[in-house]
This record gives sequence, structure tokens and C-alpha cells, in this order.
Amino acid sequence: MKPLRKLRSDIAWSTHDEIGVLGYDLCRDLIGKVSLGDMGFLEIAGRLPNKQESEMFNALLVTLVEHGIVPSTLATRMTHAGAPESMQASVAAGLLGLGSVFVGSTENAARMLKDALPNPEEDVNLRALANGIVDEYRSAKRILPGLGHPIHKPTDPRTTRLFSIARRTGFNGGYVELMKLISKRAQKVLERDLPINATGAIGAIACEMDIPWQACRGIGVMARAVGLVGHVLEESRQPMAVEVWQRTEHEASSRSRGKLRRRKAK
Amino acid sequence: MKPLRKLRSDIAWSTHDEIGVLGYDLCRDLIGKVSLGDMGFLEIAGRLPNKQESEMFNALLVTLVEHGIVPSTLATRMTHAGAPESMQASVAAGLLGLGSVFVGSTENAARMLKDALPNPEEDVNLRALANGIVDEYRSAKRILPGLGHPIHKPTDPRTTRLFSIARRTGFNGGYVELMKLISKRAQKVLERDLPINATGAIGAIACEMDIPWQACRGIGVMARAVGLVGHVLEESRQPMAVEVWQRTEHEASSRSRGKLRRRKAK
Amino acid sequence: MKPLRKLRSDIAWSTHDEIGVLGYDLCRDLIGKVSLGDMGFLEIAGRLPNKQESEMFNALLVTLVEHGIVPSTLATRMTHAGAPESMQASVAAGLLGLGSVFVGSTENAARMLKDALPNPEEDVNLRALANGIVDEYRSAKRILPGLGHPIHKPTDPRTTRLFSIARRTGFNGGYVELMKLISKRAQKVLERDLPINATGAIGAIACEMDIPWQACRGIGVMARAVGLVGHVLEESRQPMAVEVWQRTEHEASSRSRGKLRRRKAK
Amino acid sequence: MKPLRKLRSDIAWSTHDEIGVLGYDLCRDLIGKVSLGDMGFLEIAGRLPNKQESEMFNALLVTLVEHGIVPSTLATRMTHAGAPESMQASVAAGLLGLGSVFVGSTENAARMLKDALPNPEEDVNLRALANGIVDEYRSAKRILPGLGHPIHKPTDPRTTRLFSIARRTGFNGGYVELMKLISKRAQKVLERDLPINATGAIGAIACEMDIPWQACRGIGVMARAVGLVGHVLEESRQPMAVEVWQRTEHEASSRSRGKLRRRKAK
Repeated sequence: MKPLRKLRSDIAWSTHDEIGVLGYDLCRDLIGKVSLGDMGFLEIAGRLPNKQESEMFNALLVTLVEHGIVPSTLATRMTHAGAPESMQASVAAGLLGLGSVFVGSTENAARMLKDALPNPEEDVNLRALANGIVDEYRSAKRILPGLGHPIHKPTDPRTTRLFSIARRTGFNGGYVELMKLISKRAQKVLERDLPINATGAIGAIACEMDIPWQACRGIGVMARAVGLVGHVLEESRQPMAVEVWQRTEHEASSRSRGKLRRRKAK
Repeated sequence: MKPLRKLRSDIAWSTHDEIGVLGYDLCRDLIGKVSLGDMGFLEIAGRLPNKQESEMFNALLVTLVEHGIVPSTLATRMTHAGAPESMQASVAAGLLGLGSVFVGSTENAARMLKDALPNPEEDVNLRALANGIVDEYRSAKRILPGLGHPIHKPTDPRTTRLFSIARRTGFNGGYVELMKLISKRAQKVLERDLPINATGAIGAIACEMDIPWQACRGIGVMARAVGLVGHVLEESRQPMAVEVWQRTEHEASSRSRGKLRRRKAK
Repeated sequence: MKPLRKLRSDIAWSTHDEIGVLGYDLCRDLIGKVSLGDMGFLEIAGRLPNKQESEMFNALLVTLVEHGIVPSTLATRMTHAGAPESMQASVAAGLLGLGSVFVGSTENAARMLKDALPNPEEDVNLRALANGIVDEYRSAKRILPGLGHPIHKPTDPRTTRLFSIARRTGFNGGYVELMKLISKRAQKVLERDLPINATGAIGAIACEMDIPWQACRGIGVMARAVGLVGHVLEESRQPMAVEVWQRTEHEASSRSRGKLRRRKAK
Repeated sequence: MKPLRKLRSDIAWSTHDEIGVLGYDLCRDLIGKVSLGDMGFLEIAGRLPNKQESEMFNALLVTLVEHGIVPSTLATRMTHAGAPESMQASVAAGLLGLGSVFVGSTENAARMLKDALPNPEEDVNLRALANGIVDEYRSAKRILPGLGHPIHKPTDPRTTRLFSIARRTGFNGGYVELMKLISKRAQKVLERDLPINATGAIGAIACEMDIPWQACRGIGVMARAVGLVGHVLEESRQPMAVEVWQRTEHEASSRSRGKLRRRKAK
């Protein structure tokens, strides 16, 4: 078949004595010069971060590395119980659950903010914008992304910390302000604690950093991969998967155990 | 069922206003204080790195983030072509290939070195040890891990760089020396270029840093997850998966196209 | 923590001499009595199929087992190149691409039909329904699921075969008729070949069999897992992954090879 | 780059009106003619099964479809809790645990038998062979694959059933006999119940059917993919993942909750 389209990737190349990664010389510019988090920024933005960007972006990543025992780390541990020879498979199993429910809210928050305020330089009434968003979600009975937490009340301590770093590094503009106004309005209208949670803070700061909402899930994926390695290592030293399985199996099948129906002939 | 074994994880906990991660206060000690790479060290070592460890460990990670178009990044891109809605699944697909062939050599190198030199403080003749290892692998017709590269000859520039950082940070002890002596001996005995490649350098330095060989694959997994996010993003802007698929399909099925055998009755 | 909710699964249980699977005695009712495809029906419907259902359901599955070299089988082969020790990981990598683009169209077709005709017994004008659907999709600029194929024109031979089996087994009711009318209308209005493709035929027949649209992706997943095992086995005997990788890498990086920018200081 | 190696796959091809799958016409020979299990045989053996092979092979598959709540189905359910939009990812997560611990024993049993008896036609003393194998494993302190079960004692009912089908279909030769003699000898020498379990029976019968031991894991992968779809569907109707997660988290973090160490400065 005649090639229809030229294949092209601008990510990396190598010769016998040089390796280029996104325009940088791997050995001269990156190894020993930048951190893993900076490489994450490079993969998303196509350039290395400046000092402020590096500090802010690593803070976002560090926030997401570890949530302890959650569904995705249990998937990792269950996989380790069956395939201890494949650490990469256990980590992959854990990543697969980073879908719409837990990690998706970061991109939803970023998208909500970006859709409302495509140009952060524009002079708009943020309060009116926030009120409009809350009303719109409420009348559509949609959940506002990035707000509320089952445990962290009345404020999420990660949000407080992230916004403080955002002030220091200069990523404290209209998107962060808009997110705060949405939270305030939502608490008033819905009459309950709806603090900005970590995913809401990260979504807002990602907008400040000009990270497209489509890339936000990648921040969570990078960070959680780091944490999932730790769960594989702990599970191999101090296992829980087999015990959780056996307790669960015992209780879950107790209702049906011993019950059979006669098979009807086809 | 009566629980047989207490469930226990020491990785993380949270209360309404505090989050603990491996003994540190997430908001006070980690966010804004440490980088993603340091979190990786924390997950593996159970404590934060000191300055030298942080520099060395991030250098190992940065080396592995990006290899451009390789089988695992193609698996990621092929998955994106079918499920663009699930970035995490594309990254997971790419991680699944980090098995015995490409990433396994780091742990094999670390294991070879650690088995030969369980106690790095011991006073041993490293040259004799190296010669013994080369002879043993040779007579068993096993491939020496961490040596040789199809492109990077006569030296792997990443190894040069990593060993230079190892000298600066003090991770330049017996394991690095042993790896160099193995390479020297192997080149002499096998009469061809067998420079220490990046996986060999990383395996040796991991031993210097007291990282168990069982955890070495985790360094690759953490790093490549970061790089795979970049491949998803590039594929979404500048796709190649469909073109690679169609060219491959066309050529691969050309031998059998149109050929049928009559099915025999059962 | 006090359990908040009882755990319950009605899928399987075992005692020292008996095993129950969805109400059947595994050894007496299932092994040696039913086929793998019938087990698939049992997992979806919660009961064994009758003769007609077994024939029809296995026909749907058999249609989807094998598509040759496609993105998902390439993901499987790329994974095998790196982790040949983990057949399950290679198959899993291939399944991950069965998302919205290729397999999703079956559930989209089923959902479109079921939404339009919630009760197949109802006496409705199917032609008017079909025309309404086509107009609605057209004015919303949405692609009609289950129609058209890049190669199989003017008809998809799988559809012809599946509809012929549907007639024989009695699954040839309102949903199949509605799908045909949608295709006819779409071809007329959009003025091009829009035959019902295999995913459209399967979606319509699944509705006839009372399989919820949410379960349709499962038919594809079951079938493709069987086919992906074959690709792992062929790749291990007759590899193509390394060659595809190297050709792709060479061409894709040719534009950027050797190009570096000077890194700006932070 | 000049192609170095021709790409070739003999699995499938299509033209505008025909589709070939492993030499058969998909629409004429396969759809409506064979079952999903027969397609599995075709993928492994490269030809359709005869009547006896079809019966025996489907029996092997049906045995492995469903094990209820086990680590791999819990990985599937945990993934569904986070990414309910991706059924294929939940199934993939479950497959990833089909590694050395649970599914690997089938291939280990087959390999042990095939290594001991490469040519089943050969006239050998099976009893002496069995005794030799047991002695060898015992002196190497290796676990004999395919023997023993925590629940199914003194016999595994699946083995009884599978061997009865093997007699009827003619797959009851030297490998099955050898497996039985190994079990007998092991029980005598090790002085405990060591019945042939389902994986041992399947390994022996796979040898009888001339299925290479390298393909045995594929039988488990095909079968469990079918069962995992059922777990996704049950989890979506009758969830347990969130409850299991919360109970586990609560208990597992109780030891460390509230404990912090002061971070030492770098």
C-alpha cells in the first residue's frame, strides 16, 4: 500500500552519541538538571517549566500521588496476588480505574472554568459568571465538579495549601477566583458545605498554567503511577489482598451458597 | 468468616483536616516542598531522600521517561485510536509491555551485582568477582544484563552522564566499580563492544542507593508513565496509529488474501 | 467500621464437593453440556439460552472474534514484544482499545433502537420512526451508528448472514426492521452507500434478544479476547512487532533527528 | 529505512464481499456454523475442531469461566467503581492477575507432563516416570503443579467430570494416566490429600489434545474474559466495590492514623 500519510513524532530521536527529547539534549540538558515532575511538564507543555511553573506543577503532582487504600490501589494489590512477577501489570490495573468517577472531576472542573472564561485576560464580571454556572448546573441537576468532600470539611487542607502556593508563584488569577466564587455561591444556594476540593483546586490552577483540560487527566495518571508502585511494594511485604478476597467471598456468596435450580432442557 | 489476619497499610490516612502519607503531613511536609521524583523515592524507601539521593534518584527517573517510538508507546497509541476517551487505558496499555525484554534488564543487572556483593562494605577483590561473573554467564550461555546497545557505541552517553552524577553525589562505590569491571572483562573475552548501557548503569546505581533489585522495575514504571502521557497527547494532535495499522494490515495479509480452504464437515 | 452494606454476589459458590454457577451445578449442568458461548449468554442473561438463543448468540460472538491486524491486535503484539512472559497482559492491552471508536458503535446502535422503540410489542409506524431518527441525527450532525463500511460495499456480508440466522431463529422482529428502514432512509437522504454493518446488525439483534444496550460491549469483549489469544500465539511464532516498531520509529523521527534547542536557564 | 523483514499474518483478510479467518470463509463456514469455543480452538490449533475436540475443548473452557469472587474479579469490580464507562478496562484489569499464581499452574502441569513424555506414542513405564517426577520435585522442594485444593477434598469434582468426558471423547491417554499416577504417588509419599485439581486435569487433557503448554494460559484467558463481563454487569446492578474499599481502608489505616514524624530538613 502506498503510504497515505507521513508518520511523524517530535518526541525523541537518537544517534550513536546523542539523544534528543522534545528538543533538549537528554544527557546535557535533562539528566541531572531537571526533576521527574519537570519532565511531566515538558511532556504536557512541550517545553521545560520556569522556576514558578516547576514549583506549582510539582505541587499538583505531589497532591495526587497517594490516596492510600482506594479502589485503584486495591485493584493493583489484587493483581499482584495473582501475578507477582509483573509489577507493571499491577500498576496498570490500578491506573485503569482513573476514569470518570475519581480523576475525571479534575478535567470536568478545568473544562467548566475554561468554557466559561476562554480568555483569562478578558474583563468580565466573575461573580455574575459564577452565579450563572451554579444556576445552570442546578437547573440541569448536574453535579458541580471540584466541590465538596466526604471527609475534608469545612475546608480541604490540600486546597488551602495549593492556593497558597498559587499566590506565591503567580498562578492565582481569574480561574482560581472564579472557582472560589462558584463554591461560595453553591454553598449559599444549596445550603451545605461545598468547599473546593483538591480536584477543583487542581483544575483551576491547571487553567492558570495554560494546561488544556484534555491534559488534566494526565497529571493524575503520572502522579498515581508513582503511588501505585509503593502499593505493589507494600503488598509484597505486608499482603492484604488474599485476606480481603476471602472475607469478601465468604460474605458475598453466603446468600446463594448451596442453592441450585434444575436446568431446563434446551 | 472470622478475619484470619488483620488488614494493615502504613501508606496513608486522613482525618477531616489532616492527611498523612508515609509518616509525613501531606500539606505541611510534601506539597510545595518536594518534587514528584522525591515522592517516588519516598514510595520505594519509606522516607524522603536527602539532597544527594534526590539528585541521583531524579537523574535515574529522567533517563527513563522517554524513548520515543518504541513498542510500548505504539501500544499506547494503538489503544488511543480505539478508546480516545480513556487516557488512563492508553497509558496502562503502554506500561504492560515493560516486562522482561526491555525494562527487566535493570533489575537483572541489580540482582547480578547484589548477589555477587551482598555487603558493599566487605573487602573483596572486585576484579576477581567480575571475572568470575563473566565466566559463569559465558559458560551458562546467558546474556550479561546491562551491557551492549544497538545504537549507542562505543559508549552509551546516558551511562557517562549518570556515572558523573554518581561521583558528585557519592553513589560511586563498589557496585559501579564492579559493573565497570564486568563490562571490561566481557569486552575482552567476547571480543566486541559491550559498553554499560543505561539499564546497567541504573541497576548499579540503584544498588549503591540501597534500592532492592525487586523495586528496580518500579523506577522504570514511574518514569515511563510520565512519558506515555506525552505520547497520548501527541497522538491526539498528530496521529499515526491508523496509518501504521493500515500499512501493516495491507502488507501482512497480502500472502493469505483470497485464500480459503473448504471446511471439512465435523 | 461497622459494615454499612451487606456484600452480595449471586454468581458462584463452592463447597467441598459442589460448585454453583449462576444457579446451575457446574459439573452436572454446565461442563460437557454447554459451550463457551452459552456461558457468555448465561453471564449476560442470568440463565442458559434455549436452542435458538444459543445459535443466534454464538453467531454474534463468532462474527466479532477476529478482525486480523487492527489497532487492538497491534497493541497486543507490541506488548508481547516487551513482556512475552505475560500472555494475559498482551490480551489485556488489546482489549483496552475496544472503546468508543470501534466497538462502541454496537451499543450506540442498540441504544438508538431501544430508545426509539422501548416496547417492541407496541404497534408503531416503523417507517415514520426511522425517518424521524435519520432527520434527528442529521440535523444534530451526528453519525448514525451501525451504518456504512470502508470496505464492505454495497452490503456487509456479515449482516446478510446474521439477518438470515435471525430469520431462522425468530430474532427478526421490529428492531431488525427498524434498522433496515433507517439504513434505507439514510442512503436516500445522504445519497451514499450506507449498508447496515456488522455492529449495526449485532446491535439490532441484541435488542431482539432482550440484551440491554449496556451489555453489548461485553459481547465484543468476550469475542475479541478469544481472537487476541490467537494473535499472541502467531506473534510468538512469526513476529512482526519489532519490524513495525523500527520502521515506524525511523520514519517518524526523521523530521526531528539531530535538532536541538538550547535550553534556557530557569 | 529499508524494510528488513516482510510483515506477515495469516489470521484474517477481507475484500469487499468476503472475509477469510484462518483459511475459512467467515460468513459461509463460521458464523452460524461453529460456537465461540470452536473459534477458540481454531485460534490455538489453526483449524476447526472435530466433534470430539469441540466437546472436550468447550468443557475445558466452561470449567474456567467462573470462579465467583476471587482477586481478579475484585480487580475488575474495583476498576468499574472508578471507570464505569469502560467495560473493556474492567475486564482487562481482571485478566492482568491471571499470572503465575492461579492460572500458571495449568501450563506448569502441562509442561511437566510434556517434558516427561515428549512422544505419547512411546512405550514407557508410566509408573516409573511418575515416581521419578515426584521424587525429583520433592528433592528440589518444588510444588507439584495441578495437585491439591483448599476446598475440594478428597477429590475435585471438576476433575472427575473432565476425565469422564475425556474417556468419552478419546482424550484419555498417557498424559491423563501419568497425571493420575503422579497424584497417587504424591499422596503416598507426602502423606496428605493431593487430588488432581481442575488445573491439573486441564493441563493433562491439553497434552492429550496436542495443545502446546505455551498455549494453555490462553484457555484460561479466553474463559475468564467471558466470566469477567458477568462481574462487571453484576457490579453495575449490585455494587460491592465501594463497601469493600471503605471497610478495608478503615481497618488497614487504623494503625497509622494520626501518626506523623517530623520531616528532617534535606
